[in-house]
Amino acid sequence: MEFVEGIREKEVLELPELLERTESDGEIFVEGAVHSIRNMGEIAFVILRKRDGLLQTVWEEGKTELSVADLKEGDCIRAAGMIRNEERAPHGKELRLTSVEILSSPAAPLPLAVDKWKLNTSLETKLNLRPISLRNVKERARFKIQEGVCRGFREFLYSRGFTEVHTPKIGAKGAEGGSNLFKLSYFHKPAVLEQSPQFYKQMMVGVFDRVFETGPVFRAEKHNTRRHLNEYTSLDLEMGYIDSFLDICGMETGFLQYTMDLLEREYAKELKILGVKLPETRKIPHVRFSRAKELAAEKYGRKIRNPYDLEPEEEELIGQYFKEECGADFVFVTHYPSKKRPFYAMDDPEDERFTLSFDLLFRGLEVTTGGQRIHDYNMLMGKLEKRGMSREGMEQYLDTFKYGMPPHGGLGIGLERLTMQLLGEDNVREACLFPRDMNRLEP
Amino acid sequence: MEFVEGIREKEVLELPELLERTESDGEIFVEGAVHSIRNMGEIAFVILRKRDGLLQTVWEEGKTELSVADLKEGDCIRAAGMIRNEERAPHGKELRLTSVEILSSPAAPLPLAVDKWKLNTSLETKLNLRPISLRNVKERARFKIQEGVCRGFREFLYSRGFTEVHTPKIGAKGAEGGSNLFKLSYFHKPAVLEQSPQFYKQMMVGVFDRVFETGPVFRAEKHNTRRHLNEYTSLDLEMGYIDSFLDICGMETGFLQYTMDLLEREYAKELKILGVKLPETRKIPHVRFSRAKELAAEKYGRKIRNPYDLEPEEEELIGQYFKEECGADFVFVTHYPSKKRPFYAMDDPEDERFTLSFDLLFRGLEVTTGGQRIHDYNMLMGKLEKRGMSREGMEQYLDTFKYGMPPHGGLGIGLERLTMQLLGEDNVREACLFPRDMNRLEP
Repeated sequence: MEFVEGIREKEVLELPELLERTESDGEIFVEGAVHSIRNMGEIAFVILRKRDGLLQTVWEEGKTELSVADLKEGDCIRAAGMIRNEERAPHGKELRLTSVEILSSPAAPLPLAVDKWKLNTSLETKLNLRPISLRNVKERARFKIQEGVCRGFREFLYSRGFTEVHTPKIGAKGAEGGSNLFKLSYFHKPAVLEQSPQFYKQMMVGVFDRVFETGPVFRAEKHNTRRHLNEYTSLDLEMGYIDSFLDICGMETGFLQYTMDLLEREYAKELKILGVKLPETRKIPHVRFSRAKELAAEKYGRKIRNPYDLEPEEEELIGQYFKEECGADFVFVTHYPSKKRPFYAMDDPEDERFTLSFDLLFRGLEVTTGGQRIHDYNMLMGKLEKRGMSREGMEQYLDTFKYGMPPHGGLGIGLERLTMQLLGEDNVREACLFPRDMNRLEP
Repeated sequence: MEFVEGIREKEVLELPELLERTESDGEIFVEGAVHSIRNMGEIAFVILRKRDGLLQTVWEEGKTELSVADLKEGDCIRAAGMIRNEERAPHGKELRLTSVEILSSPAAPLPLAVDKWKLNTSLETKLNLRPISLRNVKERARFKIQEGVCRGFREFLYSRGFTEVHTPKIGAKGAEGGSNLFKLSYFHKPAVLEQSPQFYKQMMVGVFDRVFETGPVFRAEKHNTRRHLNEYTSLDLEMGYIDSFLDICGMETGFLQYTMDLLEREYAKELKILGVKLPETRKIPHVRFSRAKELAAEKYGRKIRNPYDLEPEEEELIGQYFKEECGADFVFVTHYPSKKRPFYAMDDPEDERFTLSFDLLFRGLEVTTGGQRIHDYNMLMGKLEKRGMSREGMEQYLDTFKYGMPPHGGLGIGLERLTMQLLGEDNVREACLFPRDMNRLEP
């Protein structure tokens, strides 16, 4: 009988191990994709792309059986060679090749010069050729940073007693109702794609006290802007036994602090590639919605047109205000008007026109919506009634409150928007592997 | 200006902290839901449900302002009290109450006796009342274990150089084509819900070498069995530069070993609640598909009816065989017939009727499908042609191979099935928070 006993270790080295080797270590083995070839005749520099970065290898006439003419960009190879110190190479080391084996070869030349430091092409082309354009080292680095953000969210929340949940994306009805839902037929029953795990995470607060989810959400919004996606990854949390919605702001601040440390510690290479300066997260100002509007209007002479919502330009000015006044990259805008928040939002007992809710702006763009929810069954039913809404399709959600729920609240963070702002990109599609917008369904 | 500076620490203690306190520590504070009340007249045992477990608190006549008659199951409370050692209490400690504040109260009595050790009700009822039935300590423990499995997958793969990706769930075409797809209209364009991140994860191997994703997949299969869900969480990985599909089996074995250790270390409480005996993962046998069928047929006298597929009963017998012969809980069944595998599966060069692929059986149930994929563009096009398939809707996937891809392979694990087998459940719905099947779309 034959057995698998665990990971099959290979003789082949990854970049971090390889860079610890010295000139006296003898022959070593590497694998990678040929990223670029600079052929000088008797010598050629063959740059290998590996998951951790680039490695300079040197082909010399007569040292390997393979002629450099037989090698091309896009080949995947296994190579042997000797480590040599070389100041001008990335990482100060290069590999002098002693043998090269071609594992696979492309059938056509690459349609983009992915080996250039900056991909010199339009966003449209980059997205059309996503599996290729991401082979550019700078392009792909963004998604390592994004991994770090998502990972930071989970690691931090595990450490704070949260339970991870997986809630369904096909449902009978969406959390916020109506118009922005993708509809489908589910075995001849009408169904929708969930625009948020809102109902599910609230229901699970009654079970686990604190829950989170990282998963896709779907919004059929007819916006085609630089900050909208119709499918995105939402980082959601919901927590019970809060004293104030500021407990939720505190949890988000803790997440941001943890995550910036994680990025600094484990994603330094990618931060450097992209020239990212991490934002200030030690102290995040909070300001009431109405006050924030006034401050921006006063300082920048902008008229308040809509007292119930923030226009994108207002968000930018509020961001600018707090950057200038106290060096803040983030600002919590609190107490949004009740009429702009869903029925389950907790109204401020001191002024019911406003809610105990917040948005987090990051460098002038909303990246989070959160707040305290109504936990009392009768209050929730009263609010439904006041809004003239029906219980239909929400029976099980509403019944959960009938059987008791702790005071609670939570938030949802758009992973792509947070990544976009962190990287200083001007289009959210740059921070999404395969964006879905009104015009794009492929690749 | 006001600031949020991080997590707002509370005076309230969680269970692990609380159990470190002693009788001499003075008054402490806790919050939780009233799980059950045993009223003995002048004294009452009030069991609080907290995220980490149950806490016995003791109400005594005259010691608090609140009368125990004002307290009911489902109340969420904040309480103060003194720790006392009490052998008969869970954890050997109880809290003698000095004050109780009711934070919220249910509007109706609970429809299920969630405080019973075993919920004495049907699966159907449990699922209909999911937000309530999961308040039972045993019911909810399953999903902590499930969290551990998903967390183990990610932690292990991060440590092995994998990059986490988020790929779209709405697409123009599914990876395996055709009949099992949920269809929807995407801004007047036909679209489908992805039944697997297969194409995306393969494309990303060309970028990151190793990738994984944990997310929902959607299958419109008209199966209504104890082992099928129409939406489930798939743990997917794909890795480049493999020498053999056994490298993928090795990676899965490494994941299982890591995860069983993690469960033992950090989920011991839940394992104990559920009486789970962790499976053997040090050595996992592998056996060829045809041989596995023969072995089961010979030993258990079962006729082979379909030489191209494993029937559920055959999977069970193969599981039983390897349990009896070598104590194995898992078995890799390798070299599935080519005609039962998708076009991108790599055929075995030694016998093209079979593929370099595998399923992993866990206690007689398939929990993983994986294998080596075709990486050569011309071979892939040849296989498409041989099957009479069109390139349509797969252009960008196919083109990725045109521009070079390393030898690679991967796998997909059904999180719910893996959890189900780990827990010894006989219905996969027991291992899904909110199952979606042919008849169930709510809650």
